[in-house]
Amino acid sequence: MSFDCVIRSGTCITASDTFRADVGIRNGKIAAIGTDLSGTRVIDAAGKYVMPGAVDTHTHLDMPFGGTVAKDDFETGTIAAAFGGTTAVVDFCIQSRGQSLQQAADTWHAKAEGKAVVDYGFHIAITDMTDAVLAEMKTMIHAGYPSFKVFMVYDFRVSDTVLMQALTQAGEHGGLVCVHAENNDVVTSLIHKHLSEGKTAPRYHALSRPPLAEAEATGRACKLAQITGGPLFVVHLTCKAALQEVKRARRAGASVMAETCPQYLLLSQDNYEEPGFDGAKYVMSPPLRPKENQAPLWQGLASGDLVSVATDHCPFDFHGQKDMGADDFSRIPNGAPGIEPRLALMHEFGVNAGRFALNKLVALCSTNPAKAFGLYPHKGSLAIGADADIVVFDPDKNVTLSTSVLHENVDYTPYEGVQVTGWPVATLSRGEVVCMDGRLEAKPGRGQFIRRGAPSFL
Amino acid sequence: MSFDCVIRSGTCITASDTFRADVGIRNGKIAAIGTDLSGTRVIDAAGKYVMPGAVDTHTHLDMPFGGTVAKDDFETGTIAAAFGGTTAVVDFCIQSRGQSLQQAADTWHAKAEGKAVVDYGFHIAITDMTDAVLAEMKTMIHAGYPSFKVFMVYDFRVSDTVLMQALTQAGEHGGLVCVHAENNDVVTSLIHKHLSEGKTAPRYHALSRPPLAEAEATGRACKLAQITGGPLFVVHLTCKAALQEVKRARRAGASVMAETCPQYLLLSQDNYEEPGFDGAKYVMSPPLRPKENQAPLWQGLASGDLVSVATDHCPFDFHGQKDMGADDFSRIPNGAPGIEPRLALMHEFGVNAGRFALNKLVALCSTNPAKAFGLYPHKGSLAIGADADIVVFDPDKNVTLSTSVLHENVDYTPYEGVQVTGWPVATLSRGEVVCMDGRLEAKPGRGQFIRRGAPSFL
Amino acid sequence: MSFDCVIRSGTCITASDTFRADVGIRNGKIAAIGTDLSGTRVIDAAGKYVMPGAVDTHTHLDMPFGGTVAKDDFETGTIAAAFGGTTAVVDFCIQSRGQSLQQAADTWHAKAEGKAVVDYGFHIAITDMTDAVLAEMKTMIHAGYPSFKVFMVYDFRVSDTVLMQALTQAGEHGGLVCVHAENNDVVTSLIHKHLSEGKTAPRYHALSRPPLAEAEATGRACKLAQITGGPLFVVHLTCKAALQEVKRARRAGASVMAETCPQYLLLSQDNYEEPGFDGAKYVMSPPLRPKENQAPLWQGLASGDLVSVATDHCPFDFHGQKDMGADDFSRIPNGAPGIEPRLALMHEFGVNAGRFALNKLVALCSTNPAKAFGLYPHKGSLAIGADADIVVFDPDKNVTLSTSVLHENVDYTPYEGVQVTGWPVATLSRGEVVCMDGRLEAKPGRGQFIRRGAPSFL
Amino acid sequence: MSFDCVIRSGTCITASDTFRADVGIRNGKIAAIGTDLSGTRVIDAAGKYVMPGAVDTHTHLDMPFGGTVAKDDFETGTIAAAFGGTTAVVDFCIQSRGQSLQQAADTWHAKAEGKAVVDYGFHIAITDMTDAVLAEMKTMIHAGYPSFKVFMVYDFRVSDTVLMQALTQAGEHGGLVCVHAENNDVVTSLIHKHLSEGKTAPRYHALSRPPLAEAEATGRACKLAQITGGPLFVVHLTCKAALQEVKRARRAGASVMAETCPQYLLLSQDNYEEPGFDGAKYVMSPPLRPKENQAPLWQGLASGDLVSVATDHCPFDFHGQKDMGADDFSRIPNGAPGIEPRLALMHEFGVNAGRFALNKLVALCSTNPAKAFGLYPHKGSLAIGADADIVVFDPDKNVTLSTSVLHENVDYTPYEGVQVTGWPVATLSRGEVVCMDGRLEAKPGRGQFIRRGAPSFL
Repeated sequence: MSFDCVIRSGTCITASDTFRADVGIRNGKIAAIGTDLSGTRVIDAAGKYVMPGAVDTHTHLDMPFGGTVAKDDFETGTIAAAFGGTTAVVDFCIQSRGQSLQQAADTWHAKAEGKAVVDYGFHIAITDMTDAVLAEMKTMIHAGYPSFKVFMVYDFRVSDTVLMQALTQAGEHGGLVCVHAENNDVVTSLIHKHLSEGKTAPRYHALSRPPLAEAEATGRACKLAQITGGPLFVVHLTCKAALQEVKRARRAGASVMAETCPQYLLLSQDNYEEPGFDGAKYVMSPPLRPKENQAPLWQGLASGDLVSVATDHCPFDFHGQKDMGADDFSRIPNGAPGIEPRLALMHEFGVNAGRFALNKLVALCSTNPAKAFGLYPHKGSLAIGADADIVVFDPDKNVTLSTSVLHENVDYTPYEGVQVTGWPVATLSRGEVVCMDGRLEAKPGRGQFIRRGAPSFL
Repeated sequence: MSFDCVIRSGTCITASDTFRADVGIRNGKIAAIGTDLSGTRVIDAAGKYVMPGAVDTHTHLDMPFGGTVAKDDFETGTIAAAFGGTTAVVDFCIQSRGQSLQQAADTWHAKAEGKAVVDYGFHIAITDMTDAVLAEMKTMIHAGYPSFKVFMVYDFRVSDTVLMQALTQAGEHGGLVCVHAENNDVVTSLIHKHLSEGKTAPRYHALSRPPLAEAEATGRACKLAQITGGPLFVVHLTCKAALQEVKRARRAGASVMAETCPQYLLLSQDNYEEPGFDGAKYVMSPPLRPKENQAPLWQGLASGDLVSVATDHCPFDFHGQKDMGADDFSRIPNGAPGIEPRLALMHEFGVNAGRFALNKLVALCSTNPAKAFGLYPHKGSLAIGADADIVVFDPDKNVTLSTSVLHENVDYTPYEGVQVTGWPVATLSRGEVVCMDGRLEAKPGRGQFIRRGAPSFL
Repeated sequence: MSFDCVIRSGTCITASDTFRADVGIRNGKIAAIGTDLSGTRVIDAAGKYVMPGAVDTHTHLDMPFGGTVAKDDFETGTIAAAFGGTTAVVDFCIQSRGQSLQQAADTWHAKAEGKAVVDYGFHIAITDMTDAVLAEMKTMIHAGYPSFKVFMVYDFRVSDTVLMQALTQAGEHGGLVCVHAENNDVVTSLIHKHLSEGKTAPRYHALSRPPLAEAEATGRACKLAQITGGPLFVVHLTCKAALQEVKRARRAGASVMAETCPQYLLLSQDNYEEPGFDGAKYVMSPPLRPKENQAPLWQGLASGDLVSVATDHCPFDFHGQKDMGADDFSRIPNGAPGIEPRLALMHEFGVNAGRFALNKLVALCSTNPAKAFGLYPHKGSLAIGADADIVVFDPDKNVTLSTSVLHENVDYTPYEGVQVTGWPVATLSRGEVVCMDGRLEAKPGRGQFIRRGAPSFL
Repeated sequence: MSFDCVIRSGTCITASDTFRADVGIRNGKIAAIGTDLSGTRVIDAAGKYVMPGAVDTHTHLDMPFGGTVAKDDFETGTIAAAFGGTTAVVDFCIQSRGQSLQQAADTWHAKAEGKAVVDYGFHIAITDMTDAVLAEMKTMIHAGYPSFKVFMVYDFRVSDTVLMQALTQAGEHGGLVCVHAENNDVVTSLIHKHLSEGKTAPRYHALSRPPLAEAEATGRACKLAQITGGPLFVVHLTCKAALQEVKRARRAGASVMAETCPQYLLLSQDNYEEPGFDGAKYVMSPPLRPKENQAPLWQGLASGDLVSVATDHCPFDFHGQKDMGADDFSRIPNGAPGIEPRLALMHEFGVNAGRFALNKLVALCSTNPAKAFGLYPHKGSLAIGADADIVVFDPDKNVTLSTSVLHENVDYTPYEGVQVTGWPVATLSRGEVVCMDGRLEAKPGRGQFIRRGAPSFL
């Protein structure tokens, strides 16, 4: 009995177990785990880890923002993802004023069509709630878009009433509401204050969006989740104060989950002090935080209060895009790249640093986000019958991060010069080799839309 | 050396000390504390407590609400206060749309003029913030109105931006911002939901304003206080979840204080289940809470996180006013009486029940609110030079609470039938006997406006 | 390629994943997971769960206590375990005064030899610490006994100094120290007090060992673990107050783990009030607790602060053993049965009750205890290369617990009459069928000693 | 009506009130507070604070320790106290093996007799508990010694059983148990470890007594207080971890109080790094702590969880006494001076630094310890009828602390060079001027034994 492909002799890592085995693939699915398997194509993984492909549930590809567009589209972005070991992304599709949710989804399908090299799904960001949209949420959940996002900040923010409506509707029909939690009045007031005082440098971006503005909105969203009984997912949680709100709600039995991102674990508010305009590289929302927030976030991952690590990948060139805000921090496009090095960074600073075990790495970067967002059991698992989305990871490979190493389509990386030991060396999507030893083997457009199922509470 | 009046041989109780002494009064001030003092009028206080007159910093006299007006005006209300041992009230003056703060104050001065029997001050409730009003806050602070109130709920609520402006301005000029903390969207949504489901009984008032709606707004206000550095006073805090928000902010060093009221310590959500429409008697905002919230509130008083006990006195007749909402809980005028029995209730259920010492009773009902709201050292103290606002309290007098015993101008009391041991038997205001042994000795109109000084953080 | 045995078409459950597959066994090991596997023996698991055999790391078989001996020996006890889905036990071997640790182990090996039907390991309980014993700990760790136990209560308790020595030595050589945490002076004083007051009934057993006595000792052990840096495992944690101590230590980064037992999750102090002497059935140490402790324990399992669920199985007949204490609760043999229904109880009240997912059931009853105590990867896993210790669990089978259903060698069960849906229908140990459809297929003595490896911190 | 003495025109400060008045004294008692009082002796206090004399409830005068004796006896010690504004001390009388408590008291009475210039009481430290001693506790409580101390560390430590007995007996008869809380096994083990490694310098004193050793014993004592219902006072609490234990117990309703000392608020473990043997100056038990413990202690004072500030004054000369431990930190006499500058230090770093109000200074240094230990209302109060124990404090006087300024009989001060603004300029005891403008006016021996009454829980 031969397989289309066999990954041989690797150390398989799941979210709970570690064992040496061959993995046999047939028809794009994992068909066997055992020993002495033979196949048409054999990938030697001896001395390497074989893990379910990483799942990135927070990306912004081809995303318009403030008069410009994020540099990575679904082609360059998913290629970078694949090189980093990520085999599924869930991107944020933004409803425009007056659009139905399906129209919004159609817009994003058009962006992805013919471009992606790995599979992708869409969260639908609701910016214009009406009775029709509320009803359409149910339709979208059943059509494979079970997660919605609302912003508590920005012009397209929603009121608490709309957030409650979304939570209630999602709760009734098996959906999930993601929230970008920052208090809009605080942020707007402080931006205005700083600009009116002539404080235009990148550092004032962070000072205009203090941790308590995030903690406030996080706590508010959590309490609205408790009041409505609706399921909430707090995206890009950055700081101790916000984490405490999530913990409180979870201890009270609320259906609340949260993620953080590598940048909040590894970078800090100090980066805004880099010389010249370099601080602009780190302008994202919420911003980087004072260093003392890092340890509580790591602890939140350990305790399970933070269920996953996503990237919030949203790249803008330092030259030509970020400099739109050279004289006004509020005009710097918000976002930074990170889709590619996530798995390696978490391996280096999580596993190699002794903060958690390899199984936890898989849980945080793959299994948990897949479960939370309804990609499981097709994605996020090495199990029989799952899509053969697999990353072979060499734990001994030394890499110094740099734009020359990375495939992200942007002129800088926030991790320039960071050294890691451990790097993905092969990535398979539905059994096809997408990347191998630094070469791209797959064609753009092979990636498919993922009709997601019901989110699970972790 | 003789005094105008001597209170002889009582046990003097201050917020920290207990001692037997005569108190000598001259020109309306406390002039001496000692023994064997002689005076023109001598009040024998042997076997009784001599305490600084109680200070009630949360009253609504002659207050329009929902098409009717609270039954007690400044005459009947301050008479009831005086019989209960309260010698100073700070009432909430509500700015109307378009009014300046001074115009609002003038309206309330007109209500009080010629009527009050004890002294009174005004908080100014800001409902229509403009640049002019913001600037006027400074003027009002210096004119003796150092405390402002904003509502986070109701049609006249303020945005977070306005709350931040008020906090900032108060912080810069020595004022204090009081907040009624409930989340408006939650409350509005739930009222609408209940009514649309035909749930019109009084109990749905409570279910439309859940503890988490209060905790949310309380937490938000606390965080805005931290962000702006402005001083915040949370009025009528009712529940454990809101108290936790206040504690968190205080532990973090924020200038946040809070009060609770006897009704939240002694009554509960169960009262809404009383037969017929009787639940309407307890319709106030925030509403009465599940019983398990009482113990944390008592503990908050003990730990100092709740600095004072006020009444939120806002009486509406059960027959003729409360019944405006017979078919719709949302039309029941919000509020309940309580200005008179506060001191006796706190003595009974605080001191007699062993929860705290007599000195703490004085602190909670007199000294602390006087300090927090800038009435101190004129009010809230038995000290030399202070206004001779004094209550003589008989710790052995048994009273069964009832409308027939109380002087509040309203056809019911929430405390009907409650038995207490300990009752005020004489009340002096600036040295004049206002009440003695159940008789009113003072004329309406003798009460004066209190130009208050700077609030203190406790 | 055929296997010795194939478990066909079941739903495989690991601590993280759920998938339908066949499991192929060869030479006592799991050799393949896939589809369409064929084997000499085929077990049809369609519609059933296939899980790693449960691991019970807290048993007392053939255990002398207070002049009598626990009723289950290694034969009857491991048979009952196997019928309940448990394929490995770690029993407590107690050092006698003057014995070396190896001598103690030898005594326990003799008890198990020729009797066990599933595999077993030994913790060594140190009761007589000397320099030689301290040195011997290292030898024992490398000989496959990496976990030690000390008692903080009973005559054979250790001092804090000895606990520190054990923690330090275990920390240096890759071992783990288990602790029975109750304050001896409290317990002794209260037993003496109750007996001297003529209070001899079973209920006074619980009142002599209050939750705070456990919390105190738990907190002390945790702090000694922090001070020495040694790894600690708190066995049979029963109450909220003790759990808080464990949480505090874990939050501070200490290497502290804890388990609880089904009886503390499901029974309560109320059971001591059962008529006649029936309360004696529940006399164990620590005792059952007031009901309000149950919810925090369930939450501790959810949050991961409690890493596993063991049984503390230590059965004494109600008639003939428990009645030794008919006139004196302190003479009732301490302990109760529970080795058999653990998995079914946790499935019923954990999974069926919606408290956690199936994967968590496997984590708590199998994978986590195997990891914590060094049985992993041989036990506690469905992975390739692991021992084929497997339980087939029928999620639809209704069972009413009763001594007539259970195989424990004792005349009562604390769970008499409890109904569960879900029951183990086949148990394999190293590929051999031990139990199938209620029949024992294996011979006593086939169980082997497990030389355990290094404990892992969870 | 003239008084023996009048303190004229000062600003009187009580634990709750601040007012300008004259204080009239007659027969050693405060007889009047008013204006325009006349007296035989008049002390002008214009521009100065008039406060109740400070009460130091933790001193070790004429105390034998490790083969030497604390340098200050009751004469030099109470003179220094008086110059610092302290008018009452409660010293620790230590029972010797075989002594009755009264015999122990007699020994200490002999030390004080004819020497003290201010009044004094005795706590009785129980080191040899017997049934007779247990019974004698009741006698001693009624004889004016209502507080007992036990040590959880040192050779004369008590077992948990004895601590429980003491708590129970104190609880039944209106007494209070003070505890020195450090885990003896931890301390002994670490001292042994450090010395055996040749680590003999003063810094190892601190490293042998880690914060967790104190937190452990503090938590244990608190839980024993909860279990027995007995009242506990934790002396010289030094660190965040121990404070958390006290808070937890207080939140749970236990009768637990605690004090800290200026050295733990103002000095730190860094002082042990001073050059040469200078670290020995700070060798006391518990030792100085890492700086991060200071802020939580200040917050504990603010929240009321720490009810008072005492000195633990126990001076040994640097030359001739401290150097007994030149080669072995464990032989350095434990203790440091501080009886004199307490009030000025707390004024400087509490009030001047904006951490709390003047009233709180009086509460912490005078009223609270007087209440907690049964000296109130005679001591700790400016009230009519109280002993005229008064300190006149000049808030504008600048002093640089130094042995040349202080009256402590010891060759160093830990506060050398510290500058304060605010200093006591006159101290009266029972109406007699003890110190005035830096001169001693009173004769040794005028101080009297204080028969204390019932402690109060704060």
